[in-house]
Amino acid sequence: MCRMSAKTDPGNFFEDFAVGQVIEHATPRTVTEGDRALYGAIYPTRFAVWSSAEFAASVGLRGPGGGHPLEELIGFHVAFGKTVPDVSLNAVANLGYAECRFHVPVVPGDTLRTGSEVIGLKQNSSGRTGVVWVRSSATNQRGEVAIDWVRWVMVHKRDADAPAPAPVVPALAAAVAAEDLVVPTGLDLSSYDFAAAGEPHRLGDYEVGERIDHVDGVTLTDAEHMMATRLWQNNAKVHFSTDARPDGRRLVYGGHVISLARALSFNGLANAQLVAAINAGAHVAPAFAGDTVHAWSEVLDVAELDAPGVGALRLRLVATKGRDASTTLRTADGTYADGVLLDLDYWALVPR
Amino acid sequence: MCRMSAKTDPGNFFEDFAVGQVIEHATPRTVTEGDRALYGAIYPTRFAVWSSAEFAASVGLRGPGGGHPLEELIGFHVAFGKTVPDVSLNAVANLGYAECRFHVPVVPGDTLRTGSEVIGLKQNSSGRTGVVWVRSSATNQRGEVAIDWVRWVMVHKRDADAPAPAPVVPALAAAVAAEDLVVPTGLDLSSYDFAAAGEPHRLGDYEVGERIDHVDGVTLTDAEHMMATRLWQNNAKVHFSTDARPDGRRLVYGGHVISLARALSFNGLANAQLVAAINAGAHVAPAFAGDTVHAWSEVLDVAELDAPGVGALRLRLVATKGRDASTTLRTADGTYADGVLLDLDYWALVPR
Amino acid sequence: MCRMSAKTDPGNFFEDFAVGQVIEHATPRTVTEGDRALYGAIYPTRFAVWSSAEFAASVGLRGPGGGHPLEELIGFHVAFGKTVPDVSLNAVANLGYAECRFHVPVVPGDTLRTGSEVIGLKQNSSGRTGVVWVRSSATNQRGEVAIDWVRWVMVHKRDADAPAPAPVVPALAAAVAAEDLVVPTGLDLSSYDFAAAGEPHRLGDYEVGERIDHVDGVTLTDAEHMMATRLWQNNAKVHFSTDARPDGRRLVYGGHVISLARALSFNGLANAQLVAAINAGAHVAPAFAGDTVHAWSEVLDVAELDAPGVGALRLRLVATKGRDASTTLRTADGTYADGVLLDLDYWALVPR
Repeated sequence: MCRMSAKTDPGNFFEDFAVGQVIEHATPRTVTEGDRALYGAIYPTRFAVWSSAEFAASVGLRGPGGGHPLEELIGFHVAFGKTVPDVSLNAVANLGYAECRFHVPVVPGDTLRTGSEVIGLKQNSSGRTGVVWVRSSATNQRGEVAIDWVRWVMVHKRDADAPAPAPVVPALAAAVAAEDLVVPTGLDLSSYDFAAAGEPHRLGDYEVGERIDHVDGVTLTDAEHMMATRLWQNNAKVHFSTDARPDGRRLVYGGHVISLARALSFNGLANAQLVAAINAGAHVAPAFAGDTVHAWSEVLDVAELDAPGVGALRLRLVATKGRDASTTLRTADGTYADGVLLDLDYWALVPR
Repeated sequence: MCRMSAKTDPGNFFEDFAVGQVIEHATPRTVTEGDRALYGAIYPTRFAVWSSAEFAASVGLRGPGGGHPLEELIGFHVAFGKTVPDVSLNAVANLGYAECRFHVPVVPGDTLRTGSEVIGLKQNSSGRTGVVWVRSSATNQRGEVAIDWVRWVMVHKRDADAPAPAPVVPALAAAVAAEDLVVPTGLDLSSYDFAAAGEPHRLGDYEVGERIDHVDGVTLTDAEHMMATRLWQNNAKVHFSTDARPDGRRLVYGGHVISLARALSFNGLANAQLVAAINAGAHVAPAFAGDTVHAWSEVLDVAELDAPGVGALRLRLVATKGRDASTTLRTADGTYADGVLLDLDYWALVPR
Repeated sequence: MCRMSAKTDPGNFFEDFAVGQVIEHATPRTVTEGDRALYGAIYPTRFAVWSSAEFAASVGLRGPGGGHPLEELIGFHVAFGKTVPDVSLNAVANLGYAECRFHVPVVPGDTLRTGSEVIGLKQNSSGRTGVVWVRSSATNQRGEVAIDWVRWVMVHKRDADAPAPAPVVPALAAAVAAEDLVVPTGLDLSSYDFAAAGEPHRLGDYEVGERIDHVDGVTLTDAEHMMATRLWQNNAKVHFSTDARPDGRRLVYGGHVISLARALSFNGLANAQLVAAINAGAHVAPAFAGDTVHAWSEVLDVAELDAPGVGALRLRLVATKGRDASTTLRTADGTYADGVLLDLDYWALVPR
């Protein structure tokens, strides 16, 4: 006589969330040099500050204790992954990001935990799904905030007949203001080694409206996107199993496309080395193994910051399926052009 | 004029083994944080004690010198891999495991060597193969035993006419007794953080006979199983080359299925964090790229141990090709049900 | 109104090079234990000195500060990868290597930078391509030379009408002389543990002309060769994108075949643990996912060195598509036999 257990995690459904609810996400995660190596094996990242401990030290970028910080998106994916079991296991779609800032650098040996607060809820007119807004925050073992961000997702209801909550739609900044960007303590780009970094361009060389086709492309494989997504302990079924979607394909984690596009952007943005904030982001279309991902960027804004030698570029990073040398974001009717996978708005720090 | 060399290793055949023979396996191996990162990229492991150095320290789990121990199966696969060139290069099948215990935790920086003693031999009635039993032991650089286990394999004879040895079949325990389980020095689960670990279930919440369908699945790729198997320096040809089997497929290392199923079991057994012993195991059917592996568990026994807050669950872990929500192990005639890949019997430590 | 940027790197064309030109390559790279782990996951390397920190210490091999050095080819690939954006982004083919020596061992934590000097130029008769010879040198953060080598590549001209430079063809040694081999400081193979290393053969057991079929094979996957090639920050497009070649296949980086063949050579050359020099090398044919790579070696020379217990084997390492137990390098007409992928001439250090 066997007794079936109900101990597995069904995830939360729309009606399980309440505005003001605080969730401590499980399985804190210690990051290591192994994460850096895998990140470099999976994404073609070459930014000197992350590639070289010597370069990082030369611009004053050190963790507490002198460690070589890890690329910001490593911390972001680890922190984000923690939220998946509680927030988006039953998600239909990841709708957007806002107000994401990188605070204390994450170094090998740090342990990140993530917590979230539900800050908005709105049932869809179908009555079968709703949108959940959460503000999440990753802290290290000293309790310092490493990263915080808002994201919103469309989540299934468990029961279509469950009553709709009072709608609460949070007011979110269209972008992090340049004066609110966090510059890592000690960062000094005034003696920056452009030859070692790989390109000569500094803040003043970029103009608002300028577009850069990053040229290079990477054809996706299932093994690589699954390895990355597992590394972040993201457990959404659609990424790992051919049984999880009617088409039998494994959906590539949206963050995989972000990291890939960001790494490809080295070619033309080699000096936009540090990500300071993510203002907004849309996963426009799904990506699958066999797709060849390219990227282009548009300069949205430029700013001078207080730290020595430090400027900021606000960039639109667009990932496409196949190369689009025309850098077309939208068609005449305002919808995204065919082939656009990702439309990400972020701030990067560059030498002035 | 070229002289062909006979310096390559043909492996041992059945008639090369003698009861009492001791084999020192080659290529000691230093484990590192890189192994942990790769393990986490290849298997969806999320157990907090291995994911977080802080969590491990909070339950008193530390290596000598304070290091963050590595998941037991990392040590097991490394130690097992050492035995392959000598024991199972000419194996037809890996038949079973018994009496496997995890003694001193393995931490990054430890160097493992493995030795084996032949404890049993029995020629098969065909006269073309025989079964070899070995007791193996992995020791660290201080000579402390980290892991020991018995396994038996069916091995080809080099020469079918070679005489059969006197059969010796070792008496093996059906399971490690609860009182013989090794609890890592210092382990204290009495102040266990269930929220950080991801599930609320403690020893008393599990009942003998209870079954847990772990829900999640992973579709295998050749790149991933080869990377894992290489990491363990397991050199059996069938895992790596499409030329090694008549069907042109690369056989997935059985240990890959063990680790995958164990990682999937997090969903329902998140607090069964430490593996204390492996009582028995059968690789029921081969697995290949494209197969989607799911897992379910059955609680076979429960025990309270002396260490503070520590209990033990004896679990049957079953990996299946495709999900079997009915958790059927055997058909009416007693043979394994279609789709069963692995039947593993082990002890895990859980908070009381 | 969008302005397209010209900030991306088109790479150098033949007419961009001048004899005597010195290039500092970008993106210095800190190597870590993560690189060792990935190398061991991607290549079936089992050489004891690299696998075990204890074994390395037992033969006196330590980095400054006592670290466990990394396999030489890890350093080589990292150093080589740096040269790709400047030297071979527009290459038709990588034609050869010479005079490559390994000087100071590379240990985790070291940061490598690479510089090159153009030492030869010769336009091809077609007028559309030319050959560029560069001498490259990788230095660590203390300015010590870790590796230096010469390679030559055939590079496209940007403009077929550009005038040909005066041809300069450097005189290169056919092989590094045994007396010029660098033995790592402290290396002492006189108390070598053959059992731990995995084979009993020492210098005197190898004869000039002897050939060793290394038996084992590995079937290539796209995920693995791309991960390796990214790890080395090699950004040549043909390795990563199905759009980069007319046949839609991703070309395997030649260095991937070198490392794979070298790792396979463990079976018969387990004691040829250290690579001291690369004398010459030809990538004879392209390799792609699905090819099964095997390897054989020929002993070209033997030498006794001054360091205690240290000898050297000059070896030809041949990688083939499919196993060639006949070890045929060339056909009757002197061209390479079908299936030969790599012909590499190198010196390895072995116990006397």
